[in-house]
Amino acid sequence: MAIIDLNSDVGEAFGRWTLGDDEAIFRSVSSANVACGFHAGDPGVIRATCEKAVEAGVVIGAHVGYRDLAGFGRRFLDIDPKELADDVVYQIGALQALAAVSGGRVEYVKPHGGLYNTIVKHTAQARAVVEAVKSVDPNLPILGLPGSEVLRLAEEAGLRAVSEAFADRAYNPDGTLVSRSQPGAVLHDPVEVAEHVLRMATEQSVRTIDGSVLTIRAESICVHGDSPGAVAMATEVKSALIDAGVSIGSFL
Amino acid sequence: MAIIDLNSDVGEAFGRWTLGDDEAIFRSVSSANVACGFHAGDPGVIRATCEKAVEAGVVIGAHVGYRDLAGFGRRFLDIDPKELADDVVYQIGALQALAAVSGGRVEYVKPHGGLYNTIVKHTAQARAVVEAVKSVDPNLPILGLPGSEVLRLAEEAGLRAVSEAFADRAYNPDGTLVSRSQPGAVLHDPVEVAEHVLRMATEQSVRTIDGSVLTIRAESICVHGDSPGAVAMATEVKSALIDAGVSIGSFL
Amino acid sequence: MAIIDLNSDVGEAFGRWTLGDDEAIFRSVSSANVACGFHAGDPGVIRATCEKAVEAGVVIGAHVGYRDLAGFGRRFLDIDPKELADDVVYQIGALQALAAVSGGRVEYVKPHGGLYNTIVKHTAQARAVVEAVKSVDPNLPILGLPGSEVLRLAEEAGLRAVSEAFADRAYNPDGTLVSRSQPGAVLHDPVEVAEHVLRMATEQSVRTIDGSVLTIRAESICVHGDSPGAVAMATEVKSALIDAGVSIGSFL
Amino acid sequence: MAIIDLNSDVGEAFGRWTLGDDEAIFRSVSSANVACGFHAGDPGVIRATCEKAVEAGVVIGAHVGYRDLAGFGRRFLDIDPKELADDVVYQIGALQALAAVSGGRVEYVKPHGGLYNTIVKHTAQARAVVEAVKSVDPNLPILGLPGSEVLRLAEEAGLRAVSEAFADRAYNPDGTLVSRSQPGAVLHDPVEVAEHVLRMATEQSVRTIDGSVLTIRAESICVHGDSPGAVAMATEVKSALIDAGVSIGSFL
Repeated sequence: MAIIDLNSDVGEAFGRWTLGDDEAIFRSVSSANVACGFHAGDPGVIRATCEKAVEAGVVIGAHVGYRDLAGFGRRFLDIDPKELADDVVYQIGALQALAAVSGGRVEYVKPHGGLYNTIVKHTAQARAVVEAVKSVDPNLPILGLPGSEVLRLAEEAGLRAVSEAFADRAYNPDGTLVSRSQPGAVLHDPVEVAEHVLRMATEQSVRTIDGSVLTIRAESICVHGDSPGAVAMATEVKSALIDAGVSIGSFL
Repeated sequence: MAIIDLNSDVGEAFGRWTLGDDEAIFRSVSSANVACGFHAGDPGVIRATCEKAVEAGVVIGAHVGYRDLAGFGRRFLDIDPKELADDVVYQIGALQALAAVSGGRVEYVKPHGGLYNTIVKHTAQARAVVEAVKSVDPNLPILGLPGSEVLRLAEEAGLRAVSEAFADRAYNPDGTLVSRSQPGAVLHDPVEVAEHVLRMATEQSVRTIDGSVLTIRAESICVHGDSPGAVAMATEVKSALIDAGVSIGSFL
Repeated sequence: MAIIDLNSDVGEAFGRWTLGDDEAIFRSVSSANVACGFHAGDPGVIRATCEKAVEAGVVIGAHVGYRDLAGFGRRFLDIDPKELADDVVYQIGALQALAAVSGGRVEYVKPHGGLYNTIVKHTAQARAVVEAVKSVDPNLPILGLPGSEVLRLAEEAGLRAVSEAFADRAYNPDGTLVSRSQPGAVLHDPVEVAEHVLRMATEQSVRTIDGSVLTIRAESICVHGDSPGAVAMATEVKSALIDAGVSIGSFL
Repeated sequence: MAIIDLNSDVGEAFGRWTLGDDEAIFRSVSSANVACGFHAGDPGVIRATCEKAVEAGVVIGAHVGYRDLAGFGRRFLDIDPKELADDVVYQIGALQALAAVSGGRVEYVKPHGGLYNTIVKHTAQARAVVEAVKSVDPNLPILGLPGSEVLRLAEEAGLRAVSEAFADRAYNPDGTLVSRSQPGAVLHDPVEVAEHVLRMATEQSVRTIDGSVLTIRAESICVHGDSPGAVAMATEVKSALIDAGVSIGSFL
């Protein structure tokens, strides 16, 4: 029987501010990218998120990002790679401690937002992330975009590189994501998203924006947790997969 | 032969800003209270500090504080104890990871500044710190003021409570520190400080501000690292101890 | 015809995080306490809020607070009064510039959260706020709790002191607010809240938690904007006032 | 008699951390670029700096930067231009209030660090800065690099664009600065720096790194305040100018 991992960003509240409905998302996904305090997530939020993840049986990953609360870690920051590596170690360590006191542990790393996008191409920052993860624990897999520098360097360094696809994003025929500035870049219809995911999980392919079919080998599929309708979408995706005989489980 | 631990605050730079001369201080002390990012210390600074500590053979402790860069963690913050506990876990975890990649490890916890002073009396915050430390690692000792709530609760919780004295602070006859607002509260003469420390280390006593002699049982003596003349003072203290046949070594 | 001012906290989003529905609130109130960036409100949020306030004809006030994003400015901070004064000047100035480019201007100051509560009694911090406001513009009124140190010192300094009451808070017979830790401290029923406000506006009195009637002379009534049901409550309050022939207008 | 403006970055302390010796620098320069809190400078520091500037008769400018304390505003941040404009307005406003309570006022704007370098070429960010300054006060000049986008757009918008040269930086034959990664990029010898400045002030030219002579029309010369030897260098520059009959005065 086929198994696919669904991952989602969680723990993105901060102080007085909430974001998304993590508890509901945990009912649909197998992997939780937990914010580590640099783009979102204060220690109280992180701990509560880890506790819920442990209770729901969801695997905890470190969602490391740029130090940029005001920008939610979404803006490119031209940080020195050495400093970036230290920032990543710091964030993973902080999450490890909070996961441990919650009865869980950090089992993978997924870069967030601006950092995620940057290290698709930016070799120096990608290398910094890989070296940071390896220095903390060489058994931690890194999630990233297929074909990205970060996954290439992770493999080169002997780390497990996990390719992910996006449940609600349209693809270009060359396998890149359609830019958010283009019409049709983001899928909003839960049924359409569920079909998109089902094809990824069962046929290792996506229908691209021009209607062609493209092979995509993803070990994990990212389901967004903070958009309006996120919970409905995650629920629909889960149902569609289960109905098709695909079970949802960690890539570990 | 008598042994005494000397501890000092280090890693208190942040970004562009430096503070103190950690390398020089490391030549005189046996324990390093490393800032964890909430009152001072960015990840790059923390890592460099851990590397230097490892190289110098100095034991690494987590100098946890309030989240208050602008106030350097020196101001009382009426934080919810549950949130404080999570903040402490977060800081210890972050330092653990950076210490580990530097070839070292965190071997004790010392609260910083405003938090240090608060938990002399504030039971709820003291308990939060103790529970946080215990949840991370029950083998981590906590450094604090003799007679403080935090040390009382640490012992109650089965943690090792380590009493410390201050090399450059005058004492009242009841064992409390002379308030910084009083004349004579802070000793500035290296020779006088060295004598003060020597008496603590060899006779377990201090001469108080009114000239009487008071018994002080301290397992560690704090030498300030960021004041002008800090390095000269630490050097003088070290020499005086060695000349008197007292060796400097961790309380562990 | 009677006129009463309704004020509400707005502009409390930050970066990716939203809070409350300012546009809806602006349809019911006459004064907007705009966050200034220290407890909430980034510059983009502040400007958008000022633009909406100007468009809605709502008066802009500076909602100054402690520098504490993680605690939303709700926690007491034992800050040096001189530094507090400078923090207040900074925040007012920042808001003045953003209000001006939005076609408006800052017309009063209301301390926020932990600072608001602290300066009911804390003379040194209250004086710092008063001196800061006076130094920026002695024509800026300060909103506060009747009988508070800050209002007493504001009057002493020649500033206008504006007393406010709370639409959704129960009062003790001595005029203090029932502590949030007590049952019945916060009123949740919009109709009950509307009656509460109506009595304040038309009879200058409140029914206290023990059923007695207490005189309250408030020039402004605070309607919360960020609780669930806030908009419904503000709308109900406005309707009740208008139905009773009381118009809503700034205290200026 | 020739007059030249000397400007220097000041107010770059933050909380516990100091940087440079502003008081000494004020004895040599005519314009003070005061940090506004985003890359450095807390409100207490800013106010103290403004007070010293007023006392020394030095003109106050707003040294606006990216929101990046950890990076001291030196790293490129891919911020949305609209948000950048609001950040700039916020910073200028905050400084205006603190300057006013210190008896001074903001008389120009100079972007800092990463932002300064970015808007040499980055049209959208440059335009954001220009529009922000213009919206606050169209009489505020902007300091920048000769030939930069920000100065071009400032003039286009009807603002005064002030070209500056650098006292301690070597120039390429095309008028750009020699990159800091090249040998000889930064001049360290006070006498050589003084000669460099003297040639700029009296002959509107610099000797470039290859020995040729290049015309540079600068209305202000930047003297660094935070490097070791900064004060000695500023003093030497001032003496050399005065000895040559050039007086130091604001470009206003």
